[in-house]
Amino acid sequence: MDFRLSEKALHWQDRVRRFMEDKVLPREADYRAQVRANPSRQPPVMETMKAEAREAGLWNMFLPGDHGAGLTNLEYAPLAELMGRHLWSAEVFNCNAPDTGNMEVLHMYGNAAQQDRWLKPLMAGEIRSAFLMTEPEVASSDATNIQTRIVRDGDHYVINGRKWWSTNMAHPNVAVTIVMGKTDTDAATHAQQSQIIVPVDAPGFRVERMLTVFGYDELPIGHAEVVLENVRVPVENLIAGEGRGFEIAQGRLGPGRIHHCMRVIGMAERALELMTARLLSRTAFRKTLAEHSVWEQRVGEARTQIEMCRLLVLKAAWMMDNGGARNARSEIAQIKVAAPRMALQIIDDAIQAHGGAGVSADTPLAEMYAMVRTLRIADGPDEVHNRTVARLEYAKHGGRGG
Amino acid sequence: MDFRLSEKALHWQDRVRRFMEDKVLPREADYRAQVRANPSRQPPVMETMKAEAREAGLWNMFLPGDHGAGLTNLEYAPLAELMGRHLWSAEVFNCNAPDTGNMEVLHMYGNAAQQDRWLKPLMAGEIRSAFLMTEPEVASSDATNIQTRIVRDGDHYVINGRKWWSTNMAHPNVAVTIVMGKTDTDAATHAQQSQIIVPVDAPGFRVERMLTVFGYDELPIGHAEVVLENVRVPVENLIAGEGRGFEIAQGRLGPGRIHHCMRVIGMAERALELMTARLLSRTAFRKTLAEHSVWEQRVGEARTQIEMCRLLVLKAAWMMDNGGARNARSEIAQIKVAAPRMALQIIDDAIQAHGGAGVSADTPLAEMYAMVRTLRIADGPDEVHNRTVARLEYAKHGGRGG
Amino acid sequence: MDFRLSEKALHWQDRVRRFMEDKVLPREADYRAQVRANPSRQPPVMETMKAEAREAGLWNMFLPGDHGAGLTNLEYAPLAELMGRHLWSAEVFNCNAPDTGNMEVLHMYGNAAQQDRWLKPLMAGEIRSAFLMTEPEVASSDATNIQTRIVRDGDHYVINGRKWWSTNMAHPNVAVTIVMGKTDTDAATHAQQSQIIVPVDAPGFRVERMLTVFGYDELPIGHAEVVLENVRVPVENLIAGEGRGFEIAQGRLGPGRIHHCMRVIGMAERALELMTARLLSRTAFRKTLAEHSVWEQRVGEARTQIEMCRLLVLKAAWMMDNGGARNARSEIAQIKVAAPRMALQIIDDAIQAHGGAGVSADTPLAEMYAMVRTLRIADGPDEVHNRTVARLEYAKHGGRGG
Amino acid sequence: MDFRLSEKALHWQDRVRRFMEDKVLPREADYRAQVRANPSRQPPVMETMKAEAREAGLWNMFLPGDHGAGLTNLEYAPLAELMGRHLWSAEVFNCNAPDTGNMEVLHMYGNAAQQDRWLKPLMAGEIRSAFLMTEPEVASSDATNIQTRIVRDGDHYVINGRKWWSTNMAHPNVAVTIVMGKTDTDAATHAQQSQIIVPVDAPGFRVERMLTVFGYDELPIGHAEVVLENVRVPVENLIAGEGRGFEIAQGRLGPGRIHHCMRVIGMAERALELMTARLLSRTAFRKTLAEHSVWEQRVGEARTQIEMCRLLVLKAAWMMDNGGARNARSEIAQIKVAAPRMALQIIDDAIQAHGGAGVSADTPLAEMYAMVRTLRIADGPDEVHNRTVARLEYAKHGGRGG
Repeated sequence: MDFRLSEKALHWQDRVRRFMEDKVLPREADYRAQVRANPSRQPPVMETMKAEAREAGLWNMFLPGDHGAGLTNLEYAPLAELMGRHLWSAEVFNCNAPDTGNMEVLHMYGNAAQQDRWLKPLMAGEIRSAFLMTEPEVASSDATNIQTRIVRDGDHYVINGRKWWSTNMAHPNVAVTIVMGKTDTDAATHAQQSQIIVPVDAPGFRVERMLTVFGYDELPIGHAEVVLENVRVPVENLIAGEGRGFEIAQGRLGPGRIHHCMRVIGMAERALELMTARLLSRTAFRKTLAEHSVWEQRVGEARTQIEMCRLLVLKAAWMMDNGGARNARSEIAQIKVAAPRMALQIIDDAIQAHGGAGVSADTPLAEMYAMVRTLRIADGPDEVHNRTVARLEYAKHGGRGG
Repeated sequence: MDFRLSEKALHWQDRVRRFMEDKVLPREADYRAQVRANPSRQPPVMETMKAEAREAGLWNMFLPGDHGAGLTNLEYAPLAELMGRHLWSAEVFNCNAPDTGNMEVLHMYGNAAQQDRWLKPLMAGEIRSAFLMTEPEVASSDATNIQTRIVRDGDHYVINGRKWWSTNMAHPNVAVTIVMGKTDTDAATHAQQSQIIVPVDAPGFRVERMLTVFGYDELPIGHAEVVLENVRVPVENLIAGEGRGFEIAQGRLGPGRIHHCMRVIGMAERALELMTARLLSRTAFRKTLAEHSVWEQRVGEARTQIEMCRLLVLKAAWMMDNGGARNARSEIAQIKVAAPRMALQIIDDAIQAHGGAGVSADTPLAEMYAMVRTLRIADGPDEVHNRTVARLEYAKHGGRGG
Repeated sequence: MDFRLSEKALHWQDRVRRFMEDKVLPREADYRAQVRANPSRQPPVMETMKAEAREAGLWNMFLPGDHGAGLTNLEYAPLAELMGRHLWSAEVFNCNAPDTGNMEVLHMYGNAAQQDRWLKPLMAGEIRSAFLMTEPEVASSDATNIQTRIVRDGDHYVINGRKWWSTNMAHPNVAVTIVMGKTDTDAATHAQQSQIIVPVDAPGFRVERMLTVFGYDELPIGHAEVVLENVRVPVENLIAGEGRGFEIAQGRLGPGRIHHCMRVIGMAERALELMTARLLSRTAFRKTLAEHSVWEQRVGEARTQIEMCRLLVLKAAWMMDNGGARNARSEIAQIKVAAPRMALQIIDDAIQAHGGAGVSADTPLAEMYAMVRTLRIADGPDEVHNRTVARLEYAKHGGRGG
Repeated sequence: MDFRLSEKALHWQDRVRRFMEDKVLPREADYRAQVRANPSRQPPVMETMKAEAREAGLWNMFLPGDHGAGLTNLEYAPLAELMGRHLWSAEVFNCNAPDTGNMEVLHMYGNAAQQDRWLKPLMAGEIRSAFLMTEPEVASSDATNIQTRIVRDGDHYVINGRKWWSTNMAHPNVAVTIVMGKTDTDAATHAQQSQIIVPVDAPGFRVERMLTVFGYDELPIGHAEVVLENVRVPVENLIAGEGRGFEIAQGRLGPGRIHHCMRVIGMAERALELMTARLLSRTAFRKTLAEHSVWEQRVGEARTQIEMCRLLVLKAAWMMDNGGARNARSEIAQIKVAAPRMALQIIDDAIQAHGGAGVSADTPLAEMYAMVRTLRIADGPDEVHNRTVARLEYAKHGGRGG
């Protein structure tokens, strides 16, 4: 065992950290001001930063192999942590969800024409994309509940369904979506579903409304409720083949969960830093808050929880690199529950340390809390991931599971 | 002991419940639409409801004695719970904070002229008011930290300071504020402070900016940061006398905390209802969510926690009625911590039960969470109230405290 | 509502408290020494105290109506709390489980002969008894799992089964048991079971072994595993009639749970007192432990949790008095979970405050912890009680339950 | 980074695991029976196992360098985990605390004569030893509180003091102790203390009484309260030099805490295994307990917590190997809090899954709970370790600390 990051990983971590410090953080105020001034426009400063990041070679680093930066999941993970500290910053590096997942899908499962038409501009950061999976009318904790239908009609598929939490749909550059739906409701449970490419300008594709998260609209990104009403797309838009939707979804989830969890750890680190600084700067009952033992306990636990959780996420990344996502199934389910829970507690403590400032927009804490809270629901609720872990555990003792 | 509400309390509870069902809830959509259409206007439907409530005799019920409805704290508490279910509804009955606290202060400590000029229109619901206590630059956990100065200059007081979380300051009808500040920094710790009436149109009184809570602006009410720069008001505006600010603040807190806590219990009840309905209506893994034992545990605990907490709040109200706020000091501190904690857990579980709908605006849950979270900070953070309880406990064993 | 104990309740509380202080606590050391000297003997000092308590009229106070002291559940509850502070002290007043439950059953369901033969000496404190319900081989969380058989054979019943956690079985005075078993496995689920009186000297009745709880043998009381092998008793020993076992069990549980929970509250109060005294007497890092804010939080929460929980137990008692156990079904299930959980946290904190002394026999804390921990299992595990509460909640919304 | 154990570590892990399965576990019943038959004797089967382990080269593996098995902390850690599964088994390998710590101290700080006289027989497993540090009369959370005095008198030191929780003192082979006390109360805080070798047969050395832990006497090991009354030992018995007691204590703690935490992880793993097997074997409400979702959550969390905690302990071991204990100060404090807390939760859940069997001696769970509970107190309470972590965190931001 060796707990040292590799030279290569340290090198990339250093490059991203310096780029963040030199090019990104000094423009945070600008970015926010431009969003505030016109929330439905791509802030020009974002395009400036993107150009500089691409120029610096800090681009598409999430993609494995030669298509990105040639990084393993383990090497990329610390970069995701850095980007997580300022959530909007991932876009600077073209490393933001759900575009990352969509690029992975097109990279792994897309044919040449699909890659040429959609993957190329996505990788260039010219367009943005959404992934349409969750539906408002069924419990997403059980993936077989999906109701959207993708029906073959000659050279086309006709799609009908209602989706929500379609991230990126407010973005002015959003051009394409990948839609999950059932092509064959009579097939075996995990062979009913398919994924298909649907451009946002397809007739019958309609953004019904934008959603808020704890009062945040998250513009210019945005989360939408989308209706697909007799949307027709050519059969060529199907990804990989009928009945492979579930398989593709599984494939995208492994790396995506690592990324999410590392970003969450980045948020937790930042919350701890903000908390610590605040505790050292405020005085009550004749000593700094930092010196009150109740805060010693909370800070001590925060540091401990971050360290433990980060190690598990890194181990999951390492297992994926050394045996594939299936190999790391339990670990990936574990971190999906553990990381948001850990971060929510630390962010909540940091809010408490800040008093009124903590719930306001004067710190990023309340927004971070809202974002992380959604991660206990998105991509399957905690209960389902714990179920997965438990069933793998039962299987070790001869119980049904996995 | 008798755990039955009195006939009188039941009677009032029934009246308010029916008024809510008949007159308020059917207009909730209207109210929200009018706010959305013009957030900085008083929604006309609110004035309609206020008129009807006043007509129905459901008005100022929070005020003790003949000035309100002649209700004790214990009798009023169940009404606050009902109003808490739909937070904005308290205004319908002229029972919304911080106007309630300000009316109590003017009622108990104001002189005839002050009452005539400000209490009367407040009780008529014609104007609204704010209470300026918390300051952005010091730890509010220690009340002696306050920095605002109120300096006598001939027939005037000159006020300088910066306040925030001044609720109501966005309201178009806000006319007056009560400001807490120090008149004598050399006096004994609890005799340094005074409270003074400051109209919002006083020269030098300036709303610096409006604050958000977890992304919510809470218009048309709003929370402001306010700057007072050489604000001059006549000496007649001082309430009760120099050095009595701390005493007045204490006096207002007892009933106010009962009200807050009962409203929080109302929110928790509503969250539990929403959660239960959701669990019964969604299916995963071939049975309703309600039948999954993990939800049985959460629902069971939610009911238990609500019951226990409500009893303690009611007991605190009863103790205030039978011995005054000082008598109930420990209990009031206890509920200030216990009620928000209880409600946050239940609301959070309800969010989880709702999946994506829980964090969006499709349910009131996320906004309720944000509101209740502020109550762990406002009016003194949890840590200070637990300290109060502990020191009273130590005092029983001869330790320093209270 | 009225949160004052009645004059009558205060009077009895005062009498028991004074008797405890004057007659019981001064003999605690004696009692413990006599047990240590000969753990399988009834300590003579216990008989002395029993005689004095009976003389003082503090005897069988748990029994409702004229047979005891004529106290309601609500009036008796504070007495149970006092006895809970020193667990072994309940026997002094002939108010110790499971004798109390057995006396209630014989009182309510026994015929004249059964009462004459067994209830009389039990009420006189001359003999002791056990209740044989739980079985080692099935999940007691589901009461229908019971395997013991009670088969009619002419004028006798023949009983076969294995029971454990049969409290009192080490006691030298134990003379009789009430056994739960199935008389008709084909009947409706809740009509299969019967309860029958079995003397401990019946042939085939055998104590297999004594059990420990976290290393404690709890002598001279003791918990046994008991085997019944073709035990024959006359048909007259059946209580109430075949198939009424479940009904009788339900009847005994209501008051029993109130008693248990109040005793638990008594333990929690004592733990809080011990913790407070310790915190005030020890110094670390130049101030008393009491002054460290982490302990302020724990003491504050302990007081709050005790207050809330006691109110709910008292309300459950009041509901039983004013409508019967069925009326208080949810509340009784609620306290069964809430009281032990509350107490375990406080006792655990008290242990932490005491350091090594807390886990040793120098304080009663570790033993209290062990005793209370069993209450999360005995009489149905937490999970089953939360299920009951949840199903009653679901029923309010049209769900199956209750 | 590499999360694979080295070949060497895997090799040793395999050897110890096989030895445990082949030689130790089959004799568990024997061992327990021999202890029960005569608790104050060394069970003969233990000597048999020791001889076999030594023969097999599985001996003193905890000692670094050539004196043991040449293992690093990281390589030894998985062996400690295996031994933790059956706590008494560490003695088989001569790897049990506190002998391990005493051997480390004599190894690192002892002179040739001391090593010859005491280290040799300890390493041979011929004698046993105790470490006398904790005192009953002061808060051990603050190490400067120590009251035992070691006073030079010519060629001797005279020692007076009272110690407790002196583990091993019931063991028939216990021959020697290392005593911590103050040689100079006027010196700088951390230079006042010294450590000195005191044989158990020194005049004035007296075992006052044996202590229990939650009702367990833990014979034949035992924990004692010891009085030293004018105990005289030659000056040669002093270890390293006057004033170096604190330094020596620090040195012993690093590896010791790694060992303790890994043993705790071994216990947690075993509790999880027992829990899983139980859940799969019991049925309630028509399905196995394992299928109830509340247990899925608990098992899922248990697996996650174990994984995270183990990684942090291993990282701390790796840091010690690559930079010394000082380098790993925060991590060692972190695991000291995190590992027991993690294990207590899992053991408690396992108890709940077992019902009455869980608190009895039919499973090792209750005893494991008791043992682990003491670890939140021994070697400094949680509060002090969290304080250490927090102060190191503050120091990063310019706060006082470390």
